Amino acid sequence: MFTPNKNYLRLQGSYLFSTIGKKVREYKEANPDKRVISLGIGDVTLPLCPAVIKAINKATEEMAHAGSFRGYAPDLGYEFLRSAIVANDYKARGCDIEIDEVFVSDGAKSDSGNISDIFGDNNKIAVCDPVYPVYVDSNVMGGRTGEYNPEKEGFDGVVYMPCTAETGFLPVIPEEVPDIIYLCFPNNPTGGTITKDELQKWVDFAIEKKALIIYDAAYEAYITEENIPHSIYECEGAKKCAIELRSFSKNAGFTGTRLGFTVVPKTLTYDGVSLNQLWARRHGTKFNGAPYIIQRAGEAVYSEEGKKETKEQVKYYLDNAKIISDGLAKAGYTVFGGKNAPYIWLKTPDNMKSWEFFDYLLEEKNIVGTPGVGFGPHGEGYFRLTAFGTKENTETAVKRITGQ
Amino acid sequence: MFTPNKNYLRLQGSYLFSTIGKKVREYKEANPDKRVISLGIGDVTLPLCPAVIKAINKATEEMAHAGSFRGYAPDLGYEFLRSAIVANDYKARGCDIEIDEVFVSDGAKSDSGNISDIFGDNNKIAVCDPVYPVYVDSNVMGGRTGEYNPEKEGFDGVVYMPCTAETGFLPVIPEEVPDIIYLCFPNNPTGGTITKDELQKWVDFAIEKKALIIYDAAYEAYITEENIPHSIYECEGAKKCAIELRSFSKNAGFTGTRLGFTVVPKTLTYDGVSLNQLWARRHGTKFNGAPYIIQRAGEAVYSEEGKKETKEQVKYYLDNAKIISDGLAKAGYTVFGGKNAPYIWLKTPDNMKSWEFFDYLLEEKNIVGTPGVGFGPHGEGYFRLTAFGTKENTETAVKRITGQ
Repeated sequence: MFTPNKNYLRLQGSYLFSTIGKKVREYKEANPDKRVISLGIGDVTLPLCPAVIKAINKATEEMAHAGSFRGYAPDLGYEFLRSAIVANDYKARGCDIEIDEVFVSDGAKSDSGNISDIFGDNNKIAVCDPVYPVYVDSNVMGGRTGEYNPEKEGFDGVVYMPCTAETGFLPVIPEEVPDIIYLCFPNNPTGGTITKDELQKWVDFAIEKKALIIYDAAYEAYITEENIPHSIYECEGAKKCAIELRSFSKNAGFTGTRLGFTVVPKTLTYDGVSLNQLWARRHGTKFNGAPYIIQRAGEAVYSEEGKKETKEQVKYYLDNAKIISDGLAKAGYTVFGGKNAPYIWLKTPDNMKSWEFFDYLLEEKNIVGTPGVGFGPHGEGYFRLTAFGTKENTETAVKRITGQ
Repeated sequence: MFTPNKNYLRLQGSYLFSTIGKKVREYKEANPDKRVISLGIGDVTLPLCPAVIKAINKATEEMAHAGSFRGYAPDLGYEFLRSAIVANDYKARGCDIEIDEVFVSDGAKSDSGNISDIFGDNNKIAVCDPVYPVYVDSNVMGGRTGEYNPEKEGFDGVVYMPCTAETGFLPVIPEEVPDIIYLCFPNNPTGGTITKDELQKWVDFAIEKKALIIYDAAYEAYITEENIPHSIYECEGAKKCAIELRSFSKNAGFTGTRLGFTVVPKTLTYDGVSLNQLWARRHGTKFNGAPYIIQRAGEAVYSEEGKKETKEQVKYYLDNAKIISDGLAKAGYTVFGGKNAPYIWLKTPDNMKSWEFFDYLLEEKNIVGTPGVGFGPHGEGYFRLTAFGTKENTETAVKRITGQ
C-alpha cells in the first residue's frame, strides 16, 4: 500500500500568498464596484524591457528554423548565460566564482525549495523570523523539522532568529548551533540589510561550526548604499561555507518569465563529498534546463542596453518605495526598509494584529498588503507593502492609507 | 555540522546521457574530421512549428507592454492551457479529467523526478527493466531504495520487472507487491506498447493492492495502432490509482522549450490524504509556474493549425523510425519498436555487449546510439536508436550501419 509523505501533513494552512489571494478574490466578488490596489505579493508591474524583448524575438526566430533550432540545453545552463553571470555578478565585484559553479534554473523559488534535497534529513536549520515561507516549508516537507508547535508558533527543531526593530532587523548568532542557516539580504520581508562586516561574522561562524549558509540575494539589485554586499562571496572564506541564490524576477521583471541561478562553489565539501557535484546530479536528474528562449532573455539583461533599462526599472520601484516610506512616515507610521529593498515594513498602528490590519486595509481602504505574522511570529504587529505597483497606484494607495 | 543527503552517494556513475555525451565529445576531439551522426539522446531536430512560433511572438509582444504584461502565473498553470489539455487530451478520449487535476510544469523530466517528493520514504517502487533512469535515480535520492547491489545490477529494495523479447517487452505482474509502480507506454527505451486490456490488468492490480501507478505517457502522440490507450484514464478505475505524466517535448518539439504536465486525480487518496492537494502544495512551494510565453506556446499546440503541424512532425519522425526498422531488419538485425514510438530497440549482433556495440558504432560507423544496458541489466545485449534525427542523417546512418 502506497503512503504519502506524511511530513507534508505538518505544514500549516496553505501557502501564505494563496490565502491572501483567496481573501482578495472573495472581497472583490462581494464588492465588484471597489477598485482594489495590491501592494501585497512581490510581483512586478513594468513590462519586460526592450533589450530583453529583442533577445526573445531573436531566439524565437532561431527556434523557427532547423539550422538554428535548439533542443535539450546543457544541464547547468548555456555557457553564454553562465559566463555573463560570472563576469557581471561576480568577477566585476572581485568574487572568484567559476562558470561551473553556476547553475541556471527556472527561478529562485524553485531553487530555494529544491536546494534542501541535497542535505540529509538530520540537519538542523536556522531561519530569520520573520522569513520567506519557502525555506521552512521545504524543510518541513523534507523531514528536517519536528511537528508544528502552536505555543512557539513555529516548528520544533527549527532555530528561529528573531529580527525585529529591537535587533535592527538582523539575526543574532544563536546559542544553539544550527547546521544550515538561511539568510536573505536585502531582506524579504523586512527590507533590512546587512553590512559586509556583519555578514563576515556569519561567514566566520559558519566556517568555525562547519555550518552551511544558504544566502538568498534575490534583491541585490536594490542596494543603493555603500558597504552593503551584493554577494556573500564578497566576504572572505564564503566559498567554503555558502551557497548563493539569485533571481531575475525583481531586477529584470522575470516573475512570469522564470529564470534564476544558484552558485554552489566547488570548495564546498563535507567529508570529501562535493555539494557542487550533488547539486549537479540533482539538476541532471530532476531538471532539464531553462528554456533556450528565456536563457537568451537572461543574457540580454547583462548587455549594455539591458543593464541600462533594468536599472531604470529598479529605480522606478525604488522611487515608489520612497513614496510609501515618506508618505507613511509623515502620517505618523513607523516604517522600515525601502532604501535598499523594494519592501516597506511597517509597525501596524494602535498595536493592531497583522491580520486585523490586513482586513482593515482591504475593507476600509481597498489596499492589499501582506500581514507580517504570515512570515513568522516575530512579524506579528508588522505589515509588508511592496514597491512593485505602478507609480500612480502607489501614490493613490498612500493617500488612501494616510487619508491625506 | 551540516551533512549531505547520503542517499545520493548510492547513485551509480553519472547520468547515462552525460556519460554518452562525454564519450562522444572525446571521440570528436580526437577525430575532428569525422562526421558523427547522433541517434542517441531522444532530442528532436525539427524546428518549432509555425503555430507555436506565432503564439510565442504574440505572447512576447504582450510582455512588452504594461497593459498586457503578465507576472506570476497561477501555481497550477494558466486556465487557457489547462482547459485546452482537458478538452483535447482527456474529454475527447472519454476521460473524465477536471481542470484542477492538471498541473502544468516545466517538463516531464522535472515531474518524473519531483513526483516522488509527495511519497513517504517507506514505499517500495517497481520499475520495468530496462527503464528511463530518472524513475529509479530520483527514488534513490529520496531514500526509497537500499544500496546498489552489483550482483543484481540494481538497487536493493526495488522491484525490477524484466521486459525483454521473451515477455513481449511487457512487465509481468510481480509476486512481491510494490507500493508505487512506474509504467511508461509507448515505452522508452524499448518502443513497446501495451493494449488497453493489458493495461486494465495493471489498474485492477493496483486498486486491489492499494498501489499507485505513475504512468508516463510522454510518447502517446506516436501511437498509430488501434486499441493502444493514449491515457491510462481510458482504463476503468484508473482515477483511483494512477498519476499520469505528459510532455510537449516529443509531440511538439519542446525539448529546449520546456513544458509538461501531470494529472493527479482528486480521487487519489490515502487515509483521507489527497495526493492532489499534496502535489498542489509542492507545486505552490517549490515551483512558480512555467513561463507565460511558453504556456501560450503550449496552448497553440492544441489549435487547429498547431494540431496539423505537430502531427506532420510526428509523422516525419515515424517515417524515420520505419527507415531504421526496415533497413536494419533487411540487413539481418532483430529490431523492435518504431511502430508506435520514436525508438527502435535492437538486439546487438553477435551477442555483443551493449557498450561494446556503442563503441563499435561510434568508432567504426561514427553513429551514436544508446546502450541498452544503460537502462538496466535486462537491456544488456540491446541497443536504442532514435528516430529524431533528420531524414537525411537517418538514411545515412542506416547505410553506414548496414553497409548497404
